[in-house]
Parts: sequence; structure tokens; C-alpha cells
Amino acid sequence: MSIRIGILGYGNLGRGVELAVRAAHDMVLTAVFTRRDPATVKIQTEGVAVLSTDDVYNWTDKIDVMILCGGSATDLPEQTPKYAKLFNVVDSFDTHARIPEHFANVDAAAKDAGKVAVISCGWDPGMFSLARVYSNAILPDGNDYTFWGKGVSQGHSDAIRRIKGVKNAKQYTIPVESALEAVRSGKNPELTTRDKHTRECFVVLEEGADAAAVEKEIKEMPNYFADYDTTVHFISEEELLEKHSGMAHGGFVFRSGKTGVDKQHNHIIEYSLKLDSNPEFTTSVLVAVARAAYRMSSEGMTGCKTMLDIPPAYLSDKSGEELRAHLL
Amino acid sequence: MSIRIGILGYGNLGRGVELAVRAAHDMVLTAVFTRRDPATVKIQTEGVAVLSTDDVYNWTDKIDVMILCGGSATDLPEQTPKYAKLFNVVDSFDTHARIPEHFANVDAAAKDAGKVAVISCGWDPGMFSLARVYSNAILPDGNDYTFWGKGVSQGHSDAIRRIKGVKNAKQYTIPVESALEAVRSGKNPELTTRDKHTRECFVVLEEGADAAAVEKEIKEMPNYFADYDTTVHFISEEELLEKHSGMAHGGFVFRSGKTGVDKQHNHIIEYSLKLDSNPEFTTSVLVAVARAAYRMSSEGMTGCKTMLDIPPAYLSDKSGEELRAHLL
Repeated sequence: MSIRIGILGYGNLGRGVELAVRAAHDMVLTAVFTRRDPATVKIQTEGVAVLSTDDVYNWTDKIDVMILCGGSATDLPEQTPKYAKLFNVVDSFDTHARIPEHFANVDAAAKDAGKVAVISCGWDPGMFSLARVYSNAILPDGNDYTFWGKGVSQGHSDAIRRIKGVKNAKQYTIPVESALEAVRSGKNPELTTRDKHTRECFVVLEEGADAAAVEKEIKEMPNYFADYDTTVHFISEEELLEKHSGMAHGGFVFRSGKTGVDKQHNHIIEYSLKLDSNPEFTTSVLVAVARAAYRMSSEGMTGCKTMLDIPPAYLSDKSGEELRAHLL
Repeated sequence: MSIRIGILGYGNLGRGVELAVRAAHDMVLTAVFTRRDPATVKIQTEGVAVLSTDDVYNWTDKIDVMILCGGSATDLPEQTPKYAKLFNVVDSFDTHARIPEHFANVDAAAKDAGKVAVISCGWDPGMFSLARVYSNAILPDGNDYTFWGKGVSQGHSDAIRRIKGVKNAKQYTIPVESALEAVRSGKNPELTTRDKHTRECFVVLEEGADAAAVEKEIKEMPNYFADYDTTVHFISEEELLEKHSGMAHGGFVFRSGKTGVDKQHNHIIEYSLKLDSNPEFTTSVLVAVARAAYRMSSEGMTGCKTMLDIPPAYLSDKSGEELRAHLL
């Protein structure tokens, strides 16, 4: 029997989940729920119902796992505890600083309802978290390094767009190659914010705007740009849409740690991602985690979990025998 | 209370476990067991008993996890089922083709005794297996690539040493840089054995041996060398001992997979290790797994497990709260 998946929220993440469920042989997409008028939402899968979020209450016995595809800023803090009372749920909550609070809220709701809720799935938090936890457990005496990019930072692009005179903008976060190499070589460097990443901005000005003033305001913006080497390019809106609409992203997680009688041996663990589509990779993770959530729920587990709590085999559609014979 | 660790077998792995336990704040080394005369075995930790393997029966209530440090060829197939009847055990069994059989034998013994036994821990099998399982679960439509090296292959070095006229030898397995780059670039290449690795041999001849004949015999040896581009260097025994006694190793695991409506997006997941000491890294994994074995046993689990069955958080000495706050 296939695992019945529901999608709540149909933006980039919802569309990605839809495709990832299609690629999974043990799953079926049952329904998509939206806060918009369902009649205005066209999905990519024939024969699947598009419904209002008001209707979820009628679907509690028809969906095994609901994948929540809202944003972390305002949607998920409210949605995940709410829907964990009705369904096993998976979310991609990625505001690192607020994870403990989100976990507590979701845990209470899921335990109360006897459901499993897995939060903060994706690549960071998610696969990068796994890389950090495994490598810290193996090499307790060492240093962690996380680099992001090359990829668009939504938060930094938004910050530029709020500047007076800016019509549109995209900002790329780019890891500094020499810093990556210093870590890879086992030098265990101490790296400042400026050493690790550069920021490259593509900006479309409003007519008559002062380019020099905009560039200065970007480069001196505290937190966002002041601590980085930032490059600003002014381009046309056509060029922005044509060349900078991609959703590629990626990054690197390193652990550089020492062992030996005199700590004379250095070891480098490197985990890296190079993704053509940030949302499609993120949702590929969400769907694998939905499989695990279904299994955990079937075994009687309840409450809030993260990927750190899930045996890796639970994410796979292969049996233990198959995994041991072919992938171990 | 500290987790009480026993070591069975005191070679390179036993010494590595000893150091890794010392680096773990929640563990204590209780005893080392050897098949040799214990009086001849000098360990690196003061005040820890060195005993004959005949004595293990008196230590069943003093050791929480016994780490088995024998070899995969003949030791572990016999030892792991035997000692899983007495202790929670962890081993590094790495003969991939025989894992299903080893699992079955160990599972029966451990279940019968109510113990947890974790087999095939280390980096391949082990961390590389985790990389393969996670990335296959996330990207079901894709290709796997595993490269090993640069590092000494014990099996290939042994094969050279069996040739008439060879006094000593070390063989390095080296991944082909252009193949790594082709995978990294998302080309999804089809790679033959020869495309992926080269083999470099450092050989010390017996006096009067025929260098050309030895080189020919190495390069034409079926399975071991015939399918590879192999380089042979003849050097003195002094040079071999001076320059080729290191135990560095490493490797790369890639998953290159596609998503999207038209499978138009490629994603590269890369996991790599660069290790100054193969045995010390392997045993660092064994010790983290011993922590997990202790927890699983404390929770009442029994039977044979692999790293695929263990929630990542169980390998860490940090609490769930700490992990969520700092590493997730």
C-alpha cells in the first residue's frame, strides 16, 4: 500500500514536493491544500484534488503524512503545531535560532494527538546538520566550518530591494575559494566573516535613482553587507530576469579534527552540495523524511523529531536486507 | 556514570580505540583482552588491565560495550557472534560481500543473549554507507560514484609481496582527478574501472631478482592490476620504510541525481574524507557507535544493527536540546 501524502501550501516548495512524490514508487499524492481560492490553483498532477485549507478536517483518515510547505517567518510557527494535532507532519522550518521554541510547541501538539512531527528538514537545517552531528561525534577534538553558496540569499536580496531607488535586486552569497582550500588542507584556520564569503549584488535602479548612493548604502548596511567584501552591479530588469532567476544553491560543511597520542593526525570530513534547484532538493529531503515519519508513526512513536532522531534506513524505500546487500 | 568500554584485540585498531576512548568524556576504558600472552602487551593507558581473552567471562558485568578489533578475514566472522552472546559489541567487519551472512550470524547470537551488536562500522562500510543511503533516499533518480584514496591498499600490497623476487611492497590506490571532476560537474559519466583509479606500487626486490619480470607480473595480475593503469617503482627497503609507512587514506562518495518536471535539474552530493590515519579514524567511528550501542541496549533493543539503523543523535555525547540549539 502506498503512503498517502498531502501538501499544504502550493508555492515553490509545494511544487517540489509534488514532483518528489511522483518520483517515489511507494507514495501517492492525495490532495493539495491552499489558502488561496482552490479554483485559481493549477497543479501538475492529473486527478489530484486541490482544496481549501478549511477542508483538512475531512481528510484526517485519508492522508498518512501532510507536508507543510509554508515559510518559516510566519507560516510554520503557527501551522506546524496546528496541523500536528490532525496529521503526521513534516516541515522545513529553517530559522535556526528559533528551533528550540518551535520544537517545544510542535512536540506538545504532536504528543497530545499521538502524531509524529518532523521539523527543520531540508539541507540547512537538515543534511548539513547531519554532517555536523556525525562528524562532531566522530572527531570530538576539532573545528566546524560551514560555507554557503554560490546561491541567491532571499533575505539579502530583500534588504537591497527595500533601499530607496532600487526597483529589483538579487544577491549571491559566494564562498571564498582560498578559505575553502585552507580548511581542506588541514590548516584549521581562524576565519572571520569577511574571510569566508563574498556578496555579489545585481541591482535594477528606479529611473533617476543615484547609483553611487545606492551602492554606498548597500555596502555599508550593518549585518547584511558591512562585514563582507561586496560587489554591486547595476543591470537592466530584462537582464536580471534573464540571467538571475535561477534557484541554484549549495554549500560545504567541514569538520577538521585531530587524533593520535600527540594529536598529530588531522582528518578532514567534507560534505558538499551543488544544487541546480534549491526548492526541489529541499523538497526531495522532505519527501524522504515523510517516508520515515510514516514508519515511525506506524511503530507507535509520537511527538516532535528532527532528522537527528531518525535512523537513516527509515528514509529509504529499500528493505534492511537490500540496504545491507547493496549500499552498506 | 561513564560507559565502560572493553577492547578485544590490541593491534592498530585496538590502539586507536584506546585513544578515542580517552578523547570521549563520557567513557572509560576498563580492560584490554588479547590472544597473546598479556604480559607481552604494553598499552598506552596507566592502570588498565591487560588480560587474556580466556578471562572475558569474568568481565560480563563490568563492561558495557566490547569493541572487537580483529580482522575481517578470519577473526570477526568467528568473534562477533561469539562475544555478542556475552556483551554489547561493535565491530568493523568490512568484507562487503559477506555482510548479509555476518549480519545473520551476529543477529541470532545477540538476540538470543539480549545484547546489541553493531557490525561494519568505520568509513567504508560506515560513513560512506550512510552517505550512499541518505543520498539515494533523497535523489532516487541518479548515479552513485565511490572513489578510494589516495591510500595504501593492504590487499594489493599483499598481492605484490606474494610475487617471487619481491621482498616488500606498498601499493597506493589513487582516484583519477579528471574522473572526480567529471562527476562533480554533473556530467553523470559512465566510468570503467580504469577510468576511476590508478595504482602506484613501491617495490623492494630480493637480491638478484628480475625487475622487468616482476613489473610485468604485477601489471598483468588479474583483478588486482590488469584492469588499471599501474605504475611500478623499485626502491630500497630503507626508502620504503622511511617514505611509505604512513597510514593515510580517504575517498569520495558522490550522488548525482536529477529532479524537475523534465528532470532538468541536476544535484551533486559529495562526501569526502582525507585521513592522516586510517585506523585512528576508523576507531573514532567505532567508539562513537559504542556510545549508541550502549544507549540502544539501555532502551531494551537487542540484535544486530548497522550504522543505518542508528539515529544520528545516539552517536553524540550531547543531549537532544544541545544538538537542536547548536548543531541542527
